[in-house]
Amino acid sequence: MIPAIVPFRIKKKSIEILNQRLLPHTVDWVSCKSMKDVFVSIREMHVRGAPAIGIVAAYGYVFGALKLMKKNFSPKLDEVTALKEYLDSARPTAVNLMWATTRMEQIFTKLLAEKADMGAIKETLFLEAAAIHREDEESCSRMSHAGADYIASKWPGKKLRILTHCNTGALATGGIGTALGVIRILHQRGLVEVIYADETRPYLQGARLTAYELKVEKIPMYLIADSMAGFLMKQGKVDLVITGADRITKRGDVANKIGTFPLSVLAKEHGIPFYVAAPESTFDREMEHGDSIPIEERPAYEVLEIQGKKVAPDVPVLNYSFDVTPAENIEAIFHDGSDKVFRSAKL
Amino acid sequence: MIPAIVPFRIKKKSIEILNQRLLPHTVDWVSCKSMKDVFVSIREMHVRGAPAIGIVAAYGYVFGALKLMKKNFSPKLDEVTALKEYLDSARPTAVNLMWATTRMEQIFTKLLAEKADMGAIKETLFLEAAAIHREDEESCSRMSHAGADYIASKWPGKKLRILTHCNTGALATGGIGTALGVIRILHQRGLVEVIYADETRPYLQGARLTAYELKVEKIPMYLIADSMAGFLMKQGKVDLVITGADRITKRGDVANKIGTFPLSVLAKEHGIPFYVAAPESTFDREMEHGDSIPIEERPAYEVLEIQGKKVAPDVPVLNYSFDVTPAENIEAIFHDGSDKVFRSAKL
Repeated sequence: MIPAIVPFRIKKKSIEILNQRLLPHTVDWVSCKSMKDVFVSIREMHVRGAPAIGIVAAYGYVFGALKLMKKNFSPKLDEVTALKEYLDSARPTAVNLMWATTRMEQIFTKLLAEKADMGAIKETLFLEAAAIHREDEESCSRMSHAGADYIASKWPGKKLRILTHCNTGALATGGIGTALGVIRILHQRGLVEVIYADETRPYLQGARLTAYELKVEKIPMYLIADSMAGFLMKQGKVDLVITGADRITKRGDVANKIGTFPLSVLAKEHGIPFYVAAPESTFDREMEHGDSIPIEERPAYEVLEIQGKKVAPDVPVLNYSFDVTPAENIEAIFHDGSDKVFRSAKL
Repeated sequence: MIPAIVPFRIKKKSIEILNQRLLPHTVDWVSCKSMKDVFVSIREMHVRGAPAIGIVAAYGYVFGALKLMKKNFSPKLDEVTALKEYLDSARPTAVNLMWATTRMEQIFTKLLAEKADMGAIKETLFLEAAAIHREDEESCSRMSHAGADYIASKWPGKKLRILTHCNTGALATGGIGTALGVIRILHQRGLVEVIYADETRPYLQGARLTAYELKVEKIPMYLIADSMAGFLMKQGKVDLVITGADRITKRGDVANKIGTFPLSVLAKEHGIPFYVAAPESTFDREMEHGDSIPIEERPAYEVLEIQGKKVAPDVPVLNYSFDVTPAENIEAIFHDGSDKVFRSAKL
């Protein structure tokens, strides 16, 4: 299953990033030829979605490492460390970014220790980034099938009404998506009645990206304002909620796009199961509790303006980009590991 | 206390309605010279806010009644009934509209029965609309003081962090507002630390109107996306929630702007008191349960477009304009009756 749209294209000397800020009405590819270009594209959210950010950062790391080598064939340790620190600072919450840059740094450090030549370094780093990319594609497929199997066995033969938040599809990953991947597989199996897609303010990933992906795939849907989800649940119109994740702690707390936590509380209030789908790279094995996850705050203009148009007077804004859903509110996390369904601390 | 901004101005032969769709960046007054003009302004949400709609509808009724009289000095019963039915159909959820038109119809019917002359009918109907207007102004003041008294006695001397939804201020009423009226009085008494104003998608009453009113009044505030409220509560940053209402049933269930119900669930989850402020005209003494309240669905474009700019592909939309908060989730309703604090069925 090849998604009709991809978030980036790998070229010989560049990576072209689809500027998702302008979707769905304008298709604009941003050519990134340096680590800084990639950093800016991540920070400015031309590319978003935790898995996609990780992949793009891996390719960005290749640019950074090669530039460093050209300047100084035996770079100092702090110069190497600076590469990863720079890329990691683009978005602090999603752990996939740090996971990918850590993996790249390990290879790069090893190659330097082995005194590998420039050609070998270039090839090996590029292959590692490509491996991260390919593994994410496979991971999407495995977790999507795992999630669909789990859900199909829970509601045998039932066409489901599923609520989702943000964009977790092909545009957010290297494959068919995480939560939207599960939805794609359920739809293939004839098990989707309708998807309720939260528009997902302030960045409107749901309205702009999920609506677009669902439309292309001809999956029945309704777009709703984020604040409508609770009323739909109260009316008995939602069978389950499924979202992606930006970081999952050891006990199963999940950082995800702002608005996810309230959905989990509303689902609990109405006895509706709440699921998460995420690749292994989203699990932070070093962190115990969700309260420790750094939460990115983004600029005020994202709330004060919509698509460049001012909607509010100049007033102070809080713009948290993520929130944390405690493990207790999550029935299961679909992932791509050997057991494929992660049951959190409560289970 | 005179609000710096009012939602309409009464002229000799017209009512000028401030087009709130264009606020805060454009101040445009729509001149209404007929009942139909008023109907359109209500339906198109040039004027919104349950109490303001009621007042404007009363003036609109005067235009309609006089036009009918000019056509036929002894109108038939169904012609008279049609006036009220027409105006009521503009917005189905807020009961203040029906309350005001019922009051106007009763006077008009009485005048017709008394065979009053044209001049007397004109004057009496106009005075009745003006009375509805003035009573709402006084009502705002009474309920705002009642609410502020209640809250001040619950948190003596504490500067409060208050979350509110939609716009419930001078722009929504004939006076200083309902929930925002309570906030105004608390601020006068030095009891406000900060207001968190939900932007209130899809119509952005919070971003456009509440932010504007709070800015003019110099009340400290943060504008937030609706989906951020839950995370602020989880972080312990919210002392109380207060909203307005569009209809309150006998048992105390409250229809209000979409997004109110989820706030009440989140408040309950975090042990945060949830309050409502509304005038007597919002109480529907005929209706027992919130499930009976008709919920307005509005056009798809309000979600697909923002200020005329397309943000999503053409996909199906659900656009419920209101939801219902059960009495159990509300600690108290501040109103303007003799006891001033309504305790719902649970209490």
